Amino acid sequence: MNATIINPLLHGLRQIFRRGWLLAVWGLLLVSGNAAAQAKDQLVRLAKLEIHPAQLASYKAALKEEIETSLRVEPGVITLYAVAEKDNPNRITILEIYASQAAYKLHIQTPHFLKYKVGTKEMVKSLELIETVPVVPSAQVKQ
Amino acid sequence: MNATIINPLLHGLRQIFRRGWLLAVWGLLLVSGNAAAQAKDQLVRLAKLEIHPAQLASYKAALKEEIETSLRVEPGVITLYAVAEKDNPNRITILEIYASQAAYKLHIQTPHFLKYKVGTKEMVKSLELIETVPVVPSAQVKQ
Repeated sequence: MNATIINPLLHGLRQIFRRGWLLAVWGLLLVSGNAAAQAKDQLVRLAKLEIHPAQLASYKAALKEEIETSLRVEPGVITLYAVAEKDNPNRITILEIYASQAAYKLHIQTPHFLKYKVGTKEMVKSLELIETVPVVPSAQVKQ
Repeated sequence: MNATIINPLLHGLRQIFRRGWLLAVWGLLLVSGNAAAQAKDQLVRLAKLEIHPAQLASYKAALKEEIETSLRVEPGVITLYAVAEKDNPNRITILEIYASQAAYKLHIQTPHFLKYKVGTKEMVKSLELIETVPVVPSAQVKQ
């Protein structure tokens, strides 16, 4: 290839790299700004449940379905992370993070949440909802 | 540009796209397989702490530093997500997820963990570690 082909090609590549860097910097600024703003509005709480032992398997299946559907279809549900205690498997704790109060209000009106809530009503022995404040709002979870 | 330049160029691009697809599919299989395998090995627990009220601010600063450093430098620390109860700010719960038992053992030998542990010893009124099993091992947290 001669200079009439190579020179415009090199010029084009240079332009792409220059703009690429600018875009990358803008992108990072936007993402970090949004992350901070989003974390500020988040609703973070712990749900502590005790389940009737005979219905634990049914309860867990219903919870699993509800969590998987919420995470898949609701952008405002940041996480629902549920754990069962090894020594007391009937005791479940759920870390709930919603993008905002509005996202939470939407969540509790969804068909999948209502199905879970009504379907597991008799399985739940006790439920305690604890409103919390994250200690490190920017803390990440690796996927 | 004439055919002697364009044809090999098009051929090369076709090869790249073909291999690209294959690589993408292999990549997805590897990632999803790894995610399932990784979730199986994870060590997931809740740490429940009560902090002496007069030292709450110092404790939170130390915890924040420890969490941020761990997430930044330890690939095996999946998350350390700490919340304080709104109605009892001295009560802190930390959801801890480590990639494996080995990752946890490494974590508690790091200088930043030891600094936190020693530095906050007198600030902590009580500490309860609850070993847990995730109800939905594949549950994701959106960033």
